[in-house]
Amino acid sequence: MNAISSASAVQTVHVPLGERAYDILIGPGLIARAGAEIASRLKGRKAAVVTDENVAPQYLDVLVASLDAAGIASAEVILPAGEKTKSFEHLITVCDKVLEARVERNDCVIALGGGVIGDLSGFAAGIVRRGVRFVQVPTSLLAQVDSSVGGKTGINSRHGKNLVGVFHQPDLVLADTDVLNTLSEREFRAGYAEVAKYGLIDKPVFFSWLETNWKAVFAGGSARIEAIATSCQAKADVVVADERETGQRALLNLGHTFGHALEAATAYDSRRLVHGEGVSIGMVLAYEFSARMNLASPDDARRVERHLNEVGLPTRMSDIPGELPPAETLMEAIAQDKKVKSGKLTFILTRGIGQSFVADDVPASEVLSFLREKHG
Amino acid sequence: MNAISSASAVQTVHVPLGERAYDILIGPGLIARAGAEIASRLKGRKAAVVTDENVAPQYLDVLVASLDAAGIASAEVILPAGEKTKSFEHLITVCDKVLEARVERNDCVIALGGGVIGDLSGFAAGIVRRGVRFVQVPTSLLAQVDSSVGGKTGINSRHGKNLVGVFHQPDLVLADTDVLNTLSEREFRAGYAEVAKYGLIDKPVFFSWLETNWKAVFAGGSARIEAIATSCQAKADVVVADERETGQRALLNLGHTFGHALEAATAYDSRRLVHGEGVSIGMVLAYEFSARMNLASPDDARRVERHLNEVGLPTRMSDIPGELPPAETLMEAIAQDKKVKSGKLTFILTRGIGQSFVADDVPASEVLSFLREKHG
Ligand SMILES: NC(=O)c1ccc[n+]([C@@H]2O[C@H](COP(=O)([O-])OP(=O)(O)OC[C@H]3O[C@@H](n4cnc5c(N)ncnc54)[C@H](O)[C@@H]3O)[C@@H](O)[C@H]2O)c1
Ligand SMILES: NC(=O)c1ccc[n+]([C@@H]2O[C@H](COP(=O)([O-])OP(=O)(O)OC[C@H]3O[C@@H](n4cnc5c(N)ncnc54)[C@H](O)[C@@H]3O)[C@@H](O)[C@H]2O)c1
Ligand SMILES: [Zn+2]
Ligand SMILES: [Zn+2]
Repeated sequence: MNAISSASAVQTVHVPLGERAYDILIGPGLIARAGAEIASRLKGRKAAVVTDENVAPQYLDVLVASLDAAGIASAEVILPAGEKTKSFEHLITVCDKVLEARVERNDCVIALGGGVIGDLSGFAAGIVRRGVRFVQVPTSLLAQVDSSVGGKTGINSRHGKNLVGVFHQPDLVLADTDVLNTLSEREFRAGYAEVAKYGLIDKPVFFSWLETNWKAVFAGGSARIEAIATSCQAKADVVVADERETGQRALLNLGHTFGHALEAATAYDSRRLVHGEGVSIGMVLAYEFSARMNLASPDDARRVERHLNEVGLPTRMSDIPGELPPAETLMEAIAQDKKVKSGKLTFILTRGIGQSFVADDVPASEVLSFLREKHG
Repeated sequence: MNAISSASAVQTVHVPLGERAYDILIGPGLIARAGAEIASRLKGRKAAVVTDENVAPQYLDVLVASLDAAGIASAEVILPAGEKTKSFEHLITVCDKVLEARVERNDCVIALGGGVIGDLSGFAAGIVRRGVRFVQVPTSLLAQVDSSVGGKTGINSRHGKNLVGVFHQPDLVLADTDVLNTLSEREFRAGYAEVAKYGLIDKPVFFSWLETNWKAVFAGGSARIEAIATSCQAKADVVVADERETGQRALLNLGHTFGHALEAATAYDSRRLVHGEGVSIGMVLAYEFSARMNLASPDDARRVERHLNEVGLPTRMSDIPGELPPAETLMEAIAQDKKVKSGKLTFILTRGIGQSFVADDVPASEVLSFLREKHG
């Protein structure tokens, strides 16, 4: 699948962003090698490691030992796990700790955790001393294939998710594929929805490969590395084309407009729906809506649904436990989304598997009647 | 002095930073024209105005009326005056207000006030939605000639001043020279120290002009506009050469290493010393120290001191009311400054009026014995 040789177990995806260029390493055992990899790339010899209560007991010691061995002194911040940690309160804690550790511009902040830890500590790295170095050690599948790549960082506000933050590219991403073995099955599947997304955006061959090889991806080993490397390469390509999200980067939102509306409708209650599950349902809806608009064949929508179902992801609104608000409420959530301009909605639609595109003239009325039909 | 014609009372300094290029307008009556100037440059029609309790009663109504007249809807945040406002607490307030006002990427945050308001609200503009537009309406002389130009934004931490922030260039700077008439004499003088600084860095003709014309600058009118425009041009030149302060931008710190140490030594108590006063004493010390190192003539140091004294600025440590800590303590503050590398200090030194340079090999021992001599 991927152009990169897998002679060594570790694959490298390079993100060519000029003076902000960096490498993503993907493979087993990378946490134990983190110190050496960082020391060979960054000048500083100080680091502040940010992690959460679930990840710390499993991987913090190995990381700190590898930093020690490479002559990098480190301080640690262990935060509560979960989306609520993406707040100003914890941002202040992290900034304070980074300053206390006397981390200077050439030293680094290291995010050891999922997307929550990555988004929060990347933001802190972007603002302490107006920017220090930043290393991502993503430990969830979602973070390895999505949030750790691309430089978007941030926290939530009471006005909505990810509303406060900066663009701050990492200097290195170390995706240790072994650590995914301790991730819950459900979180792994949720991350897998984003993997499938890259196929559905513009990589039909990758999507077919996933249909054949998904069990091997879930099991671990080289298929997993392959899937993650292909995903990182896909995300990197989009980021390089549109670093600050003024156009094509919006393609990455395939399935996300519906998905976010469903997350809002379930009050971000992770017992009912996690982000990747919302994206899974949202992608099926995007394919179905595209079929309804005579853009794509209904067979494609069925094929997407079949695969996501097979891996155990929800694909219909009715798969969500509990009551959903009426279609009108979902529609309001969609309309409040920032991708709305004067009545017309911006949506990622598709002409088939791997043929997604940005449509900025989708009539709200069509979306509403579609939602009414699908609802319940 | 300035290359720009003053046929119209308003002068324009352009800051050519590629896609982040912007204009600085300098002259009378600009607050009343703000709405029109903003509307002609920015696409958005929403603004959040941030100001402080001293400035609001004088200028907020005029600004809001001019925005209204230009079809720009605005929300307001009025914060306490003073350095303490540059805190996370007030940053959160501003971000929240900006989001509540539904300010989007093409709308703007407007800073109406001195450097405190400018630094704080520029930071908020840089992080809400990962960056919205930003307009500076600086109302103190220091803000007009220094802090509003160049894109450095930030807040203080308990670990030190300006330790958290981002680079976020404004889209427009409106320096209304009339508003300086309500600034206290002492704050005006403090800002004037930074004006003189530009002459001392690399504009000997400007420094001579100030020696002759300073009374006219203090009085207002075209000499004031001239001095501010020349200062903005000087700062803009340095910023364009080194936007992210990796080298030559450090020249702007002439007088600041000593100055910051004196500010720290007086616990940032503005009754004893304000920033510009520290810079005034610091510049004299930098010239004297350069003379002691046989780099410049002692006559230059005397000339600098004479001028700053004449305008009413303090020029010696003994001018600061109250006790100062011993030279050793000042030296510690200097050594803790971020411009220190392995024993050697980085200092802005000079070979004469308008001939400053970055020296990165100044022996700490020389500085300490110089301070011991000057102290008391
Ligand atoms: N910046 C971006 O471009 C971007 C893109 C997509 C998503 N995001 C953000 O990412 C976040 C979601 O990321 P996430 O799904 O990783 O959430 P998360 O960080 O909350 O991790 C999910 C759960 O898995 C646990 N966990 C992580 N790694 C583990 C491991 N190896 N073993 C055991 N448990 C582990 C965590 O403690 C947490 O409980 C959201 O806040 C979202 O907004 C950001
Ligand atoms: N960003 C940068 O590049 C940069 C450069 C230099 C200084 N700074 C920062 O600027 C700040 C100092 O700026 P400052 O000296 O303007 O302080 P300030 O904002 O506190 O203003 C000084 C005082 O003057 C009052 N004031 C302002 N305009 C007035 C007017 N027209 N009439 C009456 N009163 C008025 C204010 O309310 C305040 O009490 C510091 O925090 C410093 O760190 C930033
Ligand atoms: Zn997603
Ligand atoms: Zn200054």
